[in-house]
Amino acid sequence: MEIETLRHSISHVLAAAVKELYPTVKFGIGPAIEDGFYYDFQFLSPISDSDLPKIQKKMVEIIKRNDKFIHEIVTKEKAKAIFKDQKYKLELISDLAKEDQKISIYHLGNFTDLCKGPHIKSASEIPNGCFQLIKLAGAYWKGSEQNAMLTRIYGIAMESKTALDKYQKQLEEAKRRDHRILGEKLELYLIDDEVGAGLPIWMPKGEALIKAIERYLYEELRKAGYKWLKSPHIANIQLWKTSGHWGFYRENMYSPIQVDEEQYMIKPMNCPFHIKVYNKKIRSYKELPIKYAELGTVYRYEKSGVLHGLNRVRGFTQDDAHIYCTPEQLEKELLSTLKLGIKMLKDFGFKNYDIYLSTKPEDKHVGSDEIWVKATKALESALKALKLKYSVDVGGGAFYGPKIDIKIKDSIGRPWQCTTIQADFNLPDRFKMEYIDKNGQRQEPIMIHRALLGSIERFVGVLIEHYAGAFPLWLAPEQMWVLPISKANNKYAKEVFEELNNNGFRVELKDEDETIGKKIREAEIQKIPYMIVLGDKETKSKKISARDRNTKKTSTLSLKSFIKNSKELIDNKK
Amino acid sequence: MEIETLRHSISHVLAAAVKELYPTVKFGIGPAIEDGFYYDFQFLSPISDSDLPKIQKKMVEIIKRNDKFIHEIVTKEKAKAIFKDQKYKLELISDLAKEDQKISIYHLGNFTDLCKGPHIKSASEIPNGCFQLIKLAGAYWKGSEQNAMLTRIYGIAMESKTALDKYQKQLEEAKRRDHRILGEKLELYLIDDEVGAGLPIWMPKGEALIKAIERYLYEELRKAGYKWLKSPHIANIQLWKTSGHWGFYRENMYSPIQVDEEQYMIKPMNCPFHIKVYNKKIRSYKELPIKYAELGTVYRYEKSGVLHGLNRVRGFTQDDAHIYCTPEQLEKELLSTLKLGIKMLKDFGFKNYDIYLSTKPEDKHVGSDEIWVKATKALESALKALKLKYSVDVGGGAFYGPKIDIKIKDSIGRPWQCTTIQADFNLPDRFKMEYIDKNGQRQEPIMIHRALLGSIERFVGVLIEHYAGAFPLWLAPEQMWVLPISKANNKYAKEVFEELNNNGFRVELKDEDETIGKKIREAEIQKIPYMIVLGDKETKSKKISARDRNTKKTSTLSLKSFIKNSKELIDNKK
Repeated sequence: MEIETLRHSISHVLAAAVKELYPTVKFGIGPAIEDGFYYDFQFLSPISDSDLPKIQKKMVEIIKRNDKFIHEIVTKEKAKAIFKDQKYKLELISDLAKEDQKISIYHLGNFTDLCKGPHIKSASEIPNGCFQLIKLAGAYWKGSEQNAMLTRIYGIAMESKTALDKYQKQLEEAKRRDHRILGEKLELYLIDDEVGAGLPIWMPKGEALIKAIERYLYEELRKAGYKWLKSPHIANIQLWKTSGHWGFYRENMYSPIQVDEEQYMIKPMNCPFHIKVYNKKIRSYKELPIKYAELGTVYRYEKSGVLHGLNRVRGFTQDDAHIYCTPEQLEKELLSTLKLGIKMLKDFGFKNYDIYLSTKPEDKHVGSDEIWVKATKALESALKALKLKYSVDVGGGAFYGPKIDIKIKDSIGRPWQCTTIQADFNLPDRFKMEYIDKNGQRQEPIMIHRALLGSIERFVGVLIEHYAGAFPLWLAPEQMWVLPISKANNKYAKEVFEELNNNGFRVELKDEDETIGKKIREAEIQKIPYMIVLGDKETKSKKISARDRNTKKTSTLSLKSFIKNSKELIDNKK
Repeated sequence: MEIETLRHSISHVLAAAVKELYPTVKFGIGPAIEDGFYYDFQFLSPISDSDLPKIQKKMVEIIKRNDKFIHEIVTKEKAKAIFKDQKYKLELISDLAKEDQKISIYHLGNFTDLCKGPHIKSASEIPNGCFQLIKLAGAYWKGSEQNAMLTRIYGIAMESKTALDKYQKQLEEAKRRDHRILGEKLELYLIDDEVGAGLPIWMPKGEALIKAIERYLYEELRKAGYKWLKSPHIANIQLWKTSGHWGFYRENMYSPIQVDEEQYMIKPMNCPFHIKVYNKKIRSYKELPIKYAELGTVYRYEKSGVLHGLNRVRGFTQDDAHIYCTPEQLEKELLSTLKLGIKMLKDFGFKNYDIYLSTKPEDKHVGSDEIWVKATKALESALKALKLKYSVDVGGGAFYGPKIDIKIKDSIGRPWQCTTIQADFNLPDRFKMEYIDKNGQRQEPIMIHRALLGSIERFVGVLIEHYAGAFPLWLAPEQMWVLPISKANNKYAKEVFEELNNNGFRVELKDEDETIGKKIREAEIQKIPYMIVLGDKETKSKKISARDRNTKKTSTLSLKSFIKNSKELIDNKK
């Protein structure tokens, strides 16, 4: 049995139950959806969430009756007679153009629905406890504001009670980890109406987190031979015409800014700027590969309805880089890029992925078959060399080249699209990029686009949910709090704070006039990795007591040892 | 004798000399300017730079004749008769509205000019060798493209030959240090027509330099209790209406971007975003002062004609910060801000400044007299506490508060406006900012705007010219080059490179197949602080020979010692 069929059949059971409880109800539609089903109704008098248990109970009754799903094909005329009291069903029947159209209907006991099916054979096939009504919502008939507002009842349904229980736990866990809720509670970022939707402002703690990520990226890429660039956020429209974005990417771009006689666009991508740096002088094969990186903040249009916390925004910072190389260098560069990407994800605590290799689209593409084969093979070799499992998305590449995408799985198993590594046979041609080869001939380099974390905003959203806000020491926005037990310990606490602060730690001194209990509770809520509690004993012995968030154990040691240990943890990305 | 009078009189000598050499010449005007003078002429047939020595020689002759400057007041009618062959002078006379206007003229030997004066008494007062004709340029009569193009002869003039020699040396030195020339030669940044005027792209070496500055700022401010923020580059127009920028700063802002039904503006300032973070929750006096910092890239309209390298651009990154404090905290905060600013300038190698305190404008201002007096006194106290000399610019403050501006002087004595510290009594009111005081009452905090380096772009421009591109180790984009003498040393060179690279240095391995002589010359041109030359001796002994750019001395030592010494230099901002 297909899970969609099961969900669809349960929606009919829901409709049947509602009909028995509310005989005057009018029916809209009731499809299967991603994790369950819904059905739209028009009630004579409104119902509320508190009515759901009663409806669910009636559904269980109906299932026990073991009614059959009976399929029938009728004439349009007969269908109109059957649904004569159901105005929405009549509307659906009228929408069918042909007068001699055959109409498919399904009976379940006394309930009959206009429906193409398929369905299960009998209500008894529905596993015990495999579904749950969850909520009511308003929904316009046919999704149009011009029409009546119906009442939608949502349910979730899985193939068994066990699967449903697991899914519900996961939902609760996901809710507990929701980055929008934690982002607010931990004061990481804010989105303000007057500033604009989809434009997060990083608050101090969020900024500290992204700065830790930025520093990590900066050093890792520097060591790997990348050179960092920094480009402006606006550029003349001419640049986007040359790059082709004005032609094929315009719907994602914002409207032009008029500057004197010229138009400027806010950038949706960093690539053209990096090419300008490459093209600043004539390049020799001896210089290649050239690797340019930028944490470039780009702005892309998204409809306001799809904006979602940090995951879907209108301005975001890519950990963008471009590698320019010869065809001979392609395989080696793709391998080292993929290797670096996997290492980075591991450093951030992600060890499971779904990897996709996307190949040449059938219809529209640029570049010779030869180079497509070469690049696709190079991507495949890199995956094989690192013994990574992957799926092939045949024809799923961009028009300008094949690519590897990686979806990381977070601590509760959800996949998130992050890494992308793409060959590009288009832009080098558009910008007339060249290098002089061994024989003194002009050649076109291959360009690799790669973002290993993707968007910093989105990646932080994922990180928040992955760690449920309890970040490892190296990433924690506030790494340690210094907590004097009483006023008598304030002076020593200040000394300890200064020493930690000067050692580069993100440390806070909490010497305000509050009870130590309250301060400790606050540190727990804020998920601070280390609480450094200083009482008379510590003040006298010039030691510190450090409570570890993860082990919940307290160690008394010298400040020097604590600093040494902490630096080691940070160096090891713990 | 006023220097302007001297320069103006020399311009008459120039005109007299030109008249003797080119009797058919028509005269335009000839004022004193910042470092000398010019005179505009219309020649029958064009002259060139090669004619300047001849003209200068004639000027010296005229000075030796010891002709007097004779002042005369004549009627308009008589003036028209005197200048009957000089169409531009006639036009100037006609421009004078009243028919009975008295006209001031000056005679010098046979040359007579329409001129208000004053002048020196006699040409012999002009000190020997105190002036120099320097160049020709085209200039439209009355500055309008509608009019004829005249030939402008520029000269520089100082109070003595010694002063002129000194000034000419300084000009040469300034040219040698020009950041636009060095920026190109050292590959620090590029400005590209297709991207747009005034929008620099930082190339790898420029980016490394600004990253070094950013890291320094980040740590210094973190240690000083600032919290870093990051805000988007666009915001809804509503924000700029609330802030007042739409009202009083619009001419500096770019045109709006249309997003769905709303208008968005690219930001000219960061302040409103920081206020949004402050206003995210109710603040207690216990939390104050709150200090928010951002390296915020802002975009402001500048006419294309005034754009100049990194000094005058259309997009720049401010080392921006805002301090929110109680009136009681104001003096202490201003003092620590000023202290930090002076320390930073010193760390970057600047020790001389011109400091200006600007006070309440007479006409337009907001805020009570009481708060103006308090803030102005607090700024003054800070200057006095640090024993800094300053000038008072009476009435020169912004309408929203008094301020301190610092112009740093570079290694050849030129002043550059960088630091600004401003009190603001306006924005807290506009955004209804509040804190709860000791008595539970709502109060408005005072806001301090401060940028200590100013704009990073401009500051880098100044740094380039200050150091003539020879940056100290801690700032140098490439700190050291590893140079194997022959192929036999390449393996060891690679080891040395890896070790330095992993130790966080910005190091380059130059193992391409070139002579060591050529590599060394290139390192000298690029002003690399250390060349690490590795020959057979070094390879065998596992030591290195490091040549210091500044002392030009080479030391042979262990790699470990070199790393230790270099880290120490960097820590000490050397």
